[in-house]
Amino acid sequence: MADKSRTTVTKKPLADFKVGVDNVIFSVDTEQNRLLVLLVMRQHEPYRDRWCLPGTLVRQGESLEESAYRILSEKIRAKNLYLEQLFTFGDIGRDPREAPDSYAVRYLSVSYFALVPFSQAELIADGVSGIAWYPVNQVPELAFDHNRILEYGHRRLCNKLEYSPVAFDVLPEAFTLSDLYQLYTTVLGENFSDYSNFRTRLLKLGFLSDTGIKTSRGAGRPASLYRFDAEAFAPLKNKPMVFI
Amino acid sequence: MADKSRTTVTKKPLADFKVGVDNVIFSVDTEQNRLLVLLVMRQHEPYRDRWCLPGTLVRQGESLEESAYRILSEKIRAKNLYLEQLFTFGDIGRDPREAPDSYAVRYLSVSYFALVPFSQAELIADGVSGIAWYPVNQVPELAFDHNRILEYGHRRLCNKLEYSPVAFDVLPEAFTLSDLYQLYTTVLGENFSDYSNFRTRLLKLGFLSDTGIKTSRGAGRPASLYRFDAEAFAPLKNKPMVFI
Repeated sequence: MADKSRTTVTKKPLADFKVGVDNVIFSVDTEQNRLLVLLVMRQHEPYRDRWCLPGTLVRQGESLEESAYRILSEKIRAKNLYLEQLFTFGDIGRDPREAPDSYAVRYLSVSYFALVPFSQAELIADGVSGIAWYPVNQVPELAFDHNRILEYGHRRLCNKLEYSPVAFDVLPEAFTLSDLYQLYTTVLGENFSDYSNFRTRLLKLGFLSDTGIKTSRGAGRPASLYRFDAEAFAPLKNKPMVFI
Repeated sequence: MADKSRTTVTKKPLADFKVGVDNVIFSVDTEQNRLLVLLVMRQHEPYRDRWCLPGTLVRQGESLEESAYRILSEKIRAKNLYLEQLFTFGDIGRDPREAPDSYAVRYLSVSYFALVPFSQAELIADGVSGIAWYPVNQVPELAFDHNRILEYGHRRLCNKLEYSPVAFDVLPEAFTLSDLYQLYTTVLGENFSDYSNFRTRLLKLGFLSDTGIKTSRGAGRPASLYRFDAEAFAPLKNKPMVFI
């Protein structure tokens, strides 16, 4: 009897999945002070002619990361593009290819994230697909749940600016403290900190080296050029700390 | 011709997946100062009779989170068990049920993470399955890549202790600063900070309230009992900061 009652519990069968990877690739246009995200135009249904994050479905014999790098290599040439896993989205019905009763194949999205230097990232035009850097605050309604994935990626980027030296990946090698402040403002918004506090905190952390060179822009006083000192940062790398 | 060359590129077919969820559930035994992780004994092949993280495969009509909570509700009764997504593991061959040529169904694992109070977590014995709290530093070789998932979860826990008030979820409501220090030491290891620095930093953050009550343990001087002041912490919640 005990065995029987166990076997009569109705268990739904296991779900079958296709797995997609979607990449949230950010860049900062430091000339125009805009945070950008890489979008591509969908060429097939569902959501044909709608912008989306560059992604693909994982093929046989391919790891998740391989799949994510594969699709990016078709869209963009960038040095040191290092993808970090962001989040896995698996809500029921997130892809219209799932039948409404959910008994058909489900579509999972494993999202990845990177920040690349604008000047070193070259978009690959294949003559067919639309591809563009979009200012994050002007992104239209995207295919699938990609606005949500983008939002998640933006939050991660903001967090990373607080405790890791990602900013120096996208700044030129020598920069003024005002350039650095402007970059933080572009990503985090105007009110994240005032300039004077920001300057004091960052200099105190000890990984910005004064190059001894000054630069003059417009009518202001000449400003010192700094560089990120990776050696000075190394011992701090695994210490709990925040920059701002 | 151009079209032909495009169509002759051999693309491997899409991979088919089953999706698993695996939970890294930590607790701290504050009596014995041990960091614990919840393990269950596998009852079926592959890896029959091997310990593993409590997990399951996602069923039809079930979201990833629903699946993760479902399996936990069969193993443990705990108040306020809140799962956070950790990482998705999708390497080829991570599950022996995949055929060696990778053309069969793949098995993905979306891992989740929680820290639960030891005194309030009750294991559910169903008379069949082995289930136990294992000291993290004594965990045996687990099924699949679960040692790797556990390691990833442990790193996340260590990080969270640095910047979020998770410690107060597992301490009793009133605790001494030495209890708090001991908890950090249990998770992070002996050398994370000396007591005096730790004490100074934590008190300076302003979210520990002295209850006015003192406690006496053993031969030492009576120590003040503190509590975590959630109201004082609220405005700090989204500020970049570290505790230690």
